[in-house]
Amino acid sequence: MCAPFSTLAEFRNILAKAPNHNTAAKAAAEERNGQLTKPPGALGRLEDLAIWYAGWRGSATPSVERPQVIVFAGNHGVCAQGVSAFPPEVTVQMVANFEHGGAAINQLSKAFGAKMDVHALDLDTPTADFTQTPAMTEDEVVAALATGWNAVDPDADVLVAGEMGIGNTTVAAAVAAAVLGGDAADWTGRGTGVDDAGLARKTEVVNKGLALHADAIKDPLEALRCLGGRELAAMAGAIASARAKGIPVILDGFICSAAAAALQVAEAGALDHVVAGHLSAEGSHERLLKSLGKEPLLSLGLRLGEGSGAALALGVLKGAVACHSGMATFAEAGVADG
Amino acid sequence: MCAPFSTLAEFRNILAKAPNHNTAAKAAAEERNGQLTKPPGALGRLEDLAIWYAGWRGSATPSVERPQVIVFAGNHGVCAQGVSAFPPEVTVQMVANFEHGGAAINQLSKAFGAKMDVHALDLDTPTADFTQTPAMTEDEVVAALATGWNAVDPDADVLVAGEMGIGNTTVAAAVAAAVLGGDAADWTGRGTGVDDAGLARKTEVVNKGLALHADAIKDPLEALRCLGGRELAAMAGAIASARAKGIPVILDGFICSAAAAALQVAEAGALDHVVAGHLSAEGSHERLLKSLGKEPLLSLGLRLGEGSGAALALGVLKGAVACHSGMATFAEAGVADG
Repeated sequence: MCAPFSTLAEFRNILAKAPNHNTAAKAAAEERNGQLTKPPGALGRLEDLAIWYAGWRGSATPSVERPQVIVFAGNHGVCAQGVSAFPPEVTVQMVANFEHGGAAINQLSKAFGAKMDVHALDLDTPTADFTQTPAMTEDEVVAALATGWNAVDPDADVLVAGEMGIGNTTVAAAVAAAVLGGDAADWTGRGTGVDDAGLARKTEVVNKGLALHADAIKDPLEALRCLGGRELAAMAGAIASARAKGIPVILDGFICSAAAAALQVAEAGALDHVVAGHLSAEGSHERLLKSLGKEPLLSLGLRLGEGSGAALALGVLKGAVACHSGMATFAEAGVADG
Repeated sequence: MCAPFSTLAEFRNILAKAPNHNTAAKAAAEERNGQLTKPPGALGRLEDLAIWYAGWRGSATPSVERPQVIVFAGNHGVCAQGVSAFPPEVTVQMVANFEHGGAAINQLSKAFGAKMDVHALDLDTPTADFTQTPAMTEDEVVAALATGWNAVDPDADVLVAGEMGIGNTTVAAAVAAAVLGGDAADWTGRGTGVDDAGLARKTEVVNKGLALHADAIKDPLEALRCLGGRELAAMAGAIASARAKGIPVILDGFICSAAAAALQVAEAGALDHVVAGHLSAEGSHERLLKSLGKEPLLSLGLRLGEGSGAALALGVLKGAVACHSGMATFAEAGVADG
């Protein structure tokens, strides 16, 4: 299987030509929703979620049977600047943990019936340090986008794209600042527990990157190349691939959302097939989701990454779709509808 | 099977003698949580939830395999005061819908692997109109408590108690005002869609009930008798029964929480084995949960009852416990823990 792009320009063109939801299926789902044995609106956001899902799946009575969770892992040259409390070896160790079934995302995938895949992207060759040079060449970022694109199972009916990568909250903060604007301090957080000095260092590093690549990063896909990481590009590629395959996506936390933001700024509407799974405890995730116009389904203080918050939200989606497609109508049940 | 009480005084005595959680299991779960392959606290509220569950289940590595959902249905004499937009016949029709598998709670129970039971409590004999006389005699309220008590499967590992009953947001508002204090207007909401005039009528009806039974309802179990309904008493009985059987409980919305509040006020700590599943869109549910000191797991605008919000929260509990009991420790996985 080959991704249908070999340059950033071609990838951009794919975003521009992305298919939209099935308006007839969505309208039929809305009509069905009004006939189900409950007071109008009594299932709250579950109703909107099911109707949205129906539109993207092209069926008035869809089901959630084949969720796919993909965890992309990458290492980052910017770690040389001392932005993380953990060494890059932990990325490799956690990939082994994913492969042996021991991580949180393994348990959540199993709990919600999702197939889980892991893609480690050149962990032995970290991206370049973005305070010195662009993190990736065009070939490198396109290869990472393609890994993400190809990783999406066309038979999946919902996608969770997660990540693991020591240093990647710094990388995500840089990408978010580049594509959404604002100061580095607006987007930089404590990640996996850095102290005040660490936070100040992260902010300075992000500022350096923004200044060095100021011209290039006016373009959001160039921002992904100059400041991003392979796992961020792979998530972006997977989200775009899901759109092309008619597969709705649940966003995870800050890093996943930053990667998604690059798509949204590159092409308005590129995230219409996407919902926000949860609000992460990483400081600036709320600002990021507001920029994307997405209201999270869950807010439980998670800040783990791996796709964990999105995988947990699979339960909400499953519940919403089960109600929508399985409930009796007033006519079927012989219930008076007021 | 016989409930171990035949008077309100005996039921009160059972609340006072309720067992507590297993402190050794809880401590072991806390220790395990600190060894799992994730940064400390990165799973947010899932960690607290799993540890709480471990304590009540008496195991450092518990599982969620046998959830039970029980829907109790009742009819209310106070409907004669025009407090609902729907006729009491809808309670009977919805019970048939539950029994035929057509309601939201059926789909959610199936989605989260819960056994679902329905108990219709004397629907042809509504409780008395509490604006005229106590809603129930002591024998009636004890019978409803006993129905709830006996309905709980001792083999269940988590309980959701839900309800259906035309008019029962008015009943729940009256119980909440009686046991927690405040004005009738603080607790009265729109239920299943009454208009401004309907809301004013509900508030007036609640005030009438509070005034008529002012002396008796200083006692919270008497408040349940004088102002409550059979399905509220049954939920209270089920929650107390779950405690005696070592089964944690997930609260549903406003009506379920009002029934639970009577227990909490009758005996401090009576809800220690209980978490709040969700924040309902019914206006005063937030105030009620704050009074109980419970932070909801979900907030998705549901206002259906039936146990639906709590059943949806089963997914969160399942995810939390799956992570806690299934993840590898740092030592097992060979991951550096910083």
